[in-house]
Amino acid sequence: MRASFKNAQRETMTDLLIHNCHVLLFDAEDRPTLARNQDILVDGGRITAIERSRPFDERQAAETIHGDGQWALPGLINCHAHVPMVLLRGLAEDVPIDRWFNEFIWPLESNLTAEDVSWGMLLGLVEMIEAGVTTVADHYFFMDEAARAVQEAGARAALGWAVFGSQGYEQLDAAAAFAERWRGQAEGRITTWIAPHAPYTCDDDFLRAAAAHARRLGVGIHIHAAEEMGQTEASLAKRGLTPIQVLEQTGILDGPVLIAHGCGILPRDVELLRRYAGHVAVAHCPKTYLKLGMGLTPLQALREAGVTIGLGTDGAVSNNTLDIWESLRLMALLQKHEARNPEVMPLAEALAIAWPGSARAVGLGDRVGRLAPGYCADLILVDLSGAHHQPLHSVTSSLVYNTRATDVQTVIVNGRLLMRDRRLLTLDRAEIVAQARNSMERLAQRVPGRQIQVYQP
Amino acid sequence: MRASFKNAQRETMTDLLIHNCHVLLFDAEDRPTLARNQDILVDGGRITAIERSRPFDERQAAETIHGDGQWALPGLINCHAHVPMVLLRGLAEDVPIDRWFNEFIWPLESNLTAEDVSWGMLLGLVEMIEAGVTTVADHYFFMDEAARAVQEAGARAALGWAVFGSQGYEQLDAAAAFAERWRGQAEGRITTWIAPHAPYTCDDDFLRAAAAHARRLGVGIHIHAAEEMGQTEASLAKRGLTPIQVLEQTGILDGPVLIAHGCGILPRDVELLRRYAGHVAVAHCPKTYLKLGMGLTPLQALREAGVTIGLGTDGAVSNNTLDIWESLRLMALLQKHEARNPEVMPLAEALAIAWPGSARAVGLGDRVGRLAPGYCADLILVDLSGAHHQPLHSVTSSLVYNTRATDVQTVIVNGRLLMRDRRLLTLDRAEIVAQARNSMERLAQRVPGRQIQVYQP
Repeated sequence: MRASFKNAQRETMTDLLIHNCHVLLFDAEDRPTLARNQDILVDGGRITAIERSRPFDERQAAETIHGDGQWALPGLINCHAHVPMVLLRGLAEDVPIDRWFNEFIWPLESNLTAEDVSWGMLLGLVEMIEAGVTTVADHYFFMDEAARAVQEAGARAALGWAVFGSQGYEQLDAAAAFAERWRGQAEGRITTWIAPHAPYTCDDDFLRAAAAHARRLGVGIHIHAAEEMGQTEASLAKRGLTPIQVLEQTGILDGPVLIAHGCGILPRDVELLRRYAGHVAVAHCPKTYLKLGMGLTPLQALREAGVTIGLGTDGAVSNNTLDIWESLRLMALLQKHEARNPEVMPLAEALAIAWPGSARAVGLGDRVGRLAPGYCADLILVDLSGAHHQPLHSVTSSLVYNTRATDVQTVIVNGRLLMRDRRLLTLDRAEIVAQARNSMERLAQRVPGRQIQVYQP
Repeated sequence: MRASFKNAQRETMTDLLIHNCHVLLFDAEDRPTLARNQDILVDGGRITAIERSRPFDERQAAETIHGDGQWALPGLINCHAHVPMVLLRGLAEDVPIDRWFNEFIWPLESNLTAEDVSWGMLLGLVEMIEAGVTTVADHYFFMDEAARAVQEAGARAALGWAVFGSQGYEQLDAAAAFAERWRGQAEGRITTWIAPHAPYTCDDDFLRAAAAHARRLGVGIHIHAAEEMGQTEASLAKRGLTPIQVLEQTGILDGPVLIAHGCGILPRDVELLRRYAGHVAVAHCPKTYLKLGMGLTPLQALREAGVTIGLGTDGAVSNNTLDIWESLRLMALLQKHEARNPEVMPLAEALAIAWPGSARAVGLGDRVGRLAPGYCADLILVDLSGAHHQPLHSVTSSLVYNTRATDVQTVIVNGRLLMRDRRLLTLDRAEIVAQARNSMERLAQRVPGRQIQVYQP
């Protein structure tokens, strides 16, 4: 009796009800629209309905969150990060890119152990969940530890084990084995990539082998390319090809690919990418570009060519945080600035890139990045009642130009609460911070000559 | 007996003790240094000592704040704002500067009443206090209301009543009377300026009359000039002089002057300003410049010429917030970006501009912008324990690139607590927000042909 009663109850009872919230929606052309006073119903980790709010006593849900005037948005997506680098933040300031790599990043990274990466990934996930980021495309080392951290945190991630050509084909095979081992794990929250580091650290055969692994496994490729114009110039000088042309010649562009940065993409590269635009995305991490003086990705030209753009942070040694609100704001502001035209990158376009665009960029456009029936219940509740939003004449303007990470109150992934009213539910923040602090002195050491790679594009 | 006992007690008892905090100090050359585990003693609204922390039971203070690992910094200074424009935020998005003025700002401002300005000023002060801004140089209308709001909030402000030439000399006289009436009021927290709007809205005689008022009263001038290159080009085309040359010819540069924006300052203007550099400052509001596509102030050239630079936000219809942390971060990032050189604007320089530089810019360099005995006790306590700062390898880096307005916990002006542990103590936030919301519909109306001024530089 008891069991059948429970089953009968389950048939009519929703797993999760978000009652009477306002919702940011995107239509089929990615145009944002606002719907007020809605109920969001979630079952089995998916959104089942978004409809005009009904009196609370007419709803039956195992768990209810009261909207209380908050805005429900799709969870933010970080399309390019090296999350565990949070362990090194603040250690490489005010230095040019060659010294940044050769004197700081690659020597510092030689200190990292698998255990460090585990704590670093957890710390970065704390930071991102607290800022409303529910999905991250991470590109780093010791990725089994990273994957376990994602599993524990309850977040969503598209993970690639970064490989340098200098590490050899065995390491590439191991990275491919990682991609095979973890894809679809953690209730489907983990997807994987093949992640060769960059054309300037992987030779053509290595890139071809990486592409072959990706095709064999049916996964995409996440790679740095044409990060800044100096790399493009060096590639042209050395071999007469741009980094993007190298990607084409090595077959990297033949399947889904997420290119990080692309500040050195030339007009000819844009024309080349136009032919692959259906499965090519570029991750845009503007704070890093400003901080390292790298120039900017030619976003308008790439978008005109049909290339998908997503927002990222890059690692916290350049960014120096993992705050996608800041990436969103900087993207819009900088496009206006570079064009000296305030009409460029209007609110609707910025929002479309941040949400459905970024979802497509990480290969999850059919699952996340918009709130709609059938999509994963990856959503955040944002409080726009703060003085810095008031009076709230324009919600879309406030989302782009005013919203702070701390306005995010509640974070849900796959229908599961990761943060509620700013209280983390899956991770032990104090323990994670303490562990990260414990290793500070060791992590900050730089031993002359000891570095994982040499920057010489 | 009782009275003499109390007097005896007062002789040894400090008004306010901030016990065992870490402190950001600036030396005589504005170089930042960090001092850990300090006690800050405050008497009569001034800092009397900053010294190595002693056990709490050895201190006697009427009021104690426990540092608890927080960082004490001078209060932030907003060197250029139109604070009550918070009432209109979000109402003028994605439009070029001529339409921004003629179709949005000046029509919208025709809706503003003295009562609106009062609530708008209070709302903006809530936002700024919550973000750690203790001083603001405000440039607006109905400034008696603004001054009363500052008085009530307990903040510090340098106030100028904005005047257009079209309003006539009577209005200029009234603005000068305001400057005379309010300077030194609110326990010395209010200073005043003469505030002609700009060379393109005030003719030369009007500017001369404004300068004469400033000299007569012994106050400075706060004025917009060369806001963007189009204004400079228009001025050159119309009369063969740059806006900065107009300031010189009309005597504006003969005394202390705070120039807002200056994105249209030419190299020849820099040379001209070099001659007045001892008393000329430029307020830099980078978020506005990006959003309106105005270009950037030539900061490096101005600093090389000895001109003081301060950070501002401008009004919230362009910014769209009043967050000086964001101005600080954008200034540093954009200087690196424009120069394509990450070594430009290192941490120490950014901090020196944000604090002692901004204090000088608003004419208060002898009172605020640094924590030292004899300076006003205008200080904030910032919590750097958040995940987005961890592990805290570099405090100065975190202050420039990671700190959020919400990291500010406690705000003190003239030794008085305005916010403690993020609870506002002088202003009724709920009432102020409710009042601002009440007028939203009326404030958002634009009546064709009804505007306070025409933009035609």
